[in-house]
Amino acid sequence: MKGVKMRGFIEQTMAEDALRKYLKEADIKVLQPEEIQITDALGRTLAEDVKAEMDVPRFDRSAMDGYAVKSDDTFGASTTNPIVIDVIGTSKIGHVPSIGVGRLQAVRISTGAPLPKGADSVVMLEYTEMIGEDKIEIYRPTTPGYNVSQRGEDVKRGERVLRKGTILQPQDIGILAAIGMVRVKVVRRPRVAILSTGNELIEPGEKVDIGKTVDANRFVLTSSVKDLGGEPLDLGISRDEVEEIRSKISKGLMTTDLVLVSGGTSVGEGDLVPEVVNSLGKPGIIVHGISMRPGKPTALATVGGKPVILLPGHPVAAMIAFSTFVKPIIARMLGTTIGKTRGQVIRARMTRRVPSSPGIRDFVRVILEKTDMGYVAEPVRTKGAGIISSMVRANGLVVIPEEREGVEEGEEVEVTLLRTLME
Amino acid sequence: MKGVKMRGFIEQTMAEDALRKYLKEADIKVLQPEEIQITDALGRTLAEDVKAEMDVPRFDRSAMDGYAVKSDDTFGASTTNPIVIDVIGTSKIGHVPSIGVGRLQAVRISTGAPLPKGADSVVMLEYTEMIGEDKIEIYRPTTPGYNVSQRGEDVKRGERVLRKGTILQPQDIGILAAIGMVRVKVVRRPRVAILSTGNELIEPGEKVDIGKTVDANRFVLTSSVKDLGGEPLDLGISRDEVEEIRSKISKGLMTTDLVLVSGGTSVGEGDLVPEVVNSLGKPGIIVHGISMRPGKPTALATVGGKPVILLPGHPVAAMIAFSTFVKPIIARMLGTTIGKTRGQVIRARMTRRVPSSPGIRDFVRVILEKTDMGYVAEPVRTKGAGIISSMVRANGLVVIPEEREGVEEGEEVEVTLLRTLME
Repeated sequence: MKGVKMRGFIEQTMAEDALRKYLKEADIKVLQPEEIQITDALGRTLAEDVKAEMDVPRFDRSAMDGYAVKSDDTFGASTTNPIVIDVIGTSKIGHVPSIGVGRLQAVRISTGAPLPKGADSVVMLEYTEMIGEDKIEIYRPTTPGYNVSQRGEDVKRGERVLRKGTILQPQDIGILAAIGMVRVKVVRRPRVAILSTGNELIEPGEKVDIGKTVDANRFVLTSSVKDLGGEPLDLGISRDEVEEIRSKISKGLMTTDLVLVSGGTSVGEGDLVPEVVNSLGKPGIIVHGISMRPGKPTALATVGGKPVILLPGHPVAAMIAFSTFVKPIIARMLGTTIGKTRGQVIRARMTRRVPSSPGIRDFVRVILEKTDMGYVAEPVRTKGAGIISSMVRANGLVVIPEEREGVEEGEEVEVTLLRTLME
Repeated sequence: MKGVKMRGFIEQTMAEDALRKYLKEADIKVLQPEEIQITDALGRTLAEDVKAEMDVPRFDRSAMDGYAVKSDDTFGASTTNPIVIDVIGTSKIGHVPSIGVGRLQAVRISTGAPLPKGADSVVMLEYTEMIGEDKIEIYRPTTPGYNVSQRGEDVKRGERVLRKGTILQPQDIGILAAIGMVRVKVVRRPRVAILSTGNELIEPGEKVDIGKTVDANRFVLTSSVKDLGGEPLDLGISRDEVEEIRSKISKGLMTTDLVLVSGGTSVGEGDLVPEVVNSLGKPGIIVHGISMRPGKPTALATVGGKPVILLPGHPVAAMIAFSTFVKPIIARMLGTTIGKTRGQVIRARMTRRVPSSPGIRDFVRVILEKTDMGYVAEPVRTKGAGIISSMVRANGLVVIPEEREGVEEGEEVEVTLLRTLME
């Protein structure tokens, strides 16, 4: 067609290929370990395997309230043929038993109290009766180990209780305490610098004149970095000027592990960021232009061994590109795998058809609703990637892969939740 | 049977009934709001609806790079019948346009720049050609609003953008910024006191003599409270002595919103906590003894209007009782609903049958694995509720409801993840 100019990216890389290529070339290392209190370790990532330095429990203990006995002595006991045994003392919770159990002897014992020497089992209170001040009848036999929690039954000394790369959950903090650990080695938090670029951008609270837009990206990105266990550094807003962009990115490179820049990443005349990043050091941009929607102008770069990720200026595109590329990079730095998402994945049926161009990975914002027939996913109607309210109204994302031309009405899809369902 | 003593709870309440009864009688109020910076608001709960005080965008802006024109002027334009228009200036991103568009005039415009007065649409660069210094040919017609993001298209002034009770996610922080908010009203964090009781308990790092066990519960509970957005207060360990338990719980009642006590909650002789709680104020214990496994000795109490929840001493039972009862109580205090779980729920097939007593809600720890046939759930073999390592080895929980006698091999079940799957 006469007079029609071609614009945009000549080449686009598929999202998965782009990430694979980048991770290979960028060779991102796990950050240094640091030792912290276990009480500060929730959500942190283990820097090494944790092995137990002691048995849990540390001693054989009773699993029931009853009497500690030698099982040999109870052989053949029944209600019609009770066995009479002498009670010679008590084993109390938290104390070393002062007495041992001999032939036809028993020691009173509570759940959790240490098994006295000589005893090998516990007969439950229910199957005994006092027949004198220090005598009981036993109505059931025991076997060695019966009603006893063995030393090391929960955790054996030397056993690996947690694997390197584990993101510590409450139960993990519990087991660290249980094996007597006070401090633990975790990977230090990735420091992530965040810069927004654009002449139109202002800070929240500033007067919004015609032409101006409040920058939302830094707030989304800062929160997303915190959510993944990183430490954000806010580099503020840069005008679309080479020197200002350069100096702010340089500051980020000097003080952090990863730099995120949003806006000015496309190939138009105001899009200065790729050029600045390439001028800062080798290799610079490794991938630019991804066949995904939204998110196309994303670029993945490395400067002086540090990742610099160029995210689109449109807030929704920036969020999706963050989740697709930045999340796995942060996971690498932490030496862990952050599943495809940290959110919930729910299967649902599409309420209507959504077309998609083949060769493009499409991210569809949906509203999930529970019906009698299971979950349904209603696509949110929006005009563009810039509509941040769509990410707030939607509670899920559906990915249409490159090889598909859309999803059909009624088709079952995997929905990644953007927030916990309130049900 | 002769000589068999009955012990334990005479009555047990079903978990759901227990919670319903407790929430009704305890009448838990939402905590006071507080105003914080939006940059500190991730994971906090909104205390009120948020309405936009301005339109986003604040002005009509171009959605494309091209020329702002009057659509009337482009009527009938085509490649064979181009329309010639004068270019009278440029509208730049971030600036108020200094010129308006008259008949057969156009203004150069970039994506995001404000639409000049007089123009009602944008013709894409692709469908134009320069034919002189200030003249272009247009090859396609526009219509009013074409390639224009209307003022208020994303968010309309006065529109509710977020609902009271929302737990703020990164995208929510983004929209707060986008509508110009610097501070936001959230519900203050619930303060939660946490006490462990038991003569056998010691702190991690202390020497573990025979008879002693390192307290794990406070560490699990403290982390779980943080995870839900609460502020834990560690009350330490109390011996099984009425006065010490009383004074520590009293301290918790004076300084926090909710007191959690683990251990000593059953009906044995060392179980002093229920008696102490009842002595501290009315109504005291509302429900005691729940038909769930593990978790039976849980008790739900209120003293002076504050919830006091008595959790079992066994770590796994304490974790499950926390999730069943404490999580919904904290949600009430935050004025939100924390779905059944905050974790991921995945459907899987059981690798083997697990029996369960009818009338009891059973919590089965499982290891989820992805196979070619979808996820399978392998029950973790353990002897008792005290085996904390089972909660670390397992990555999911399956609930067998009261009316079932077990789950069958191959049965499809819902698995609540205890940690994100590493895939």
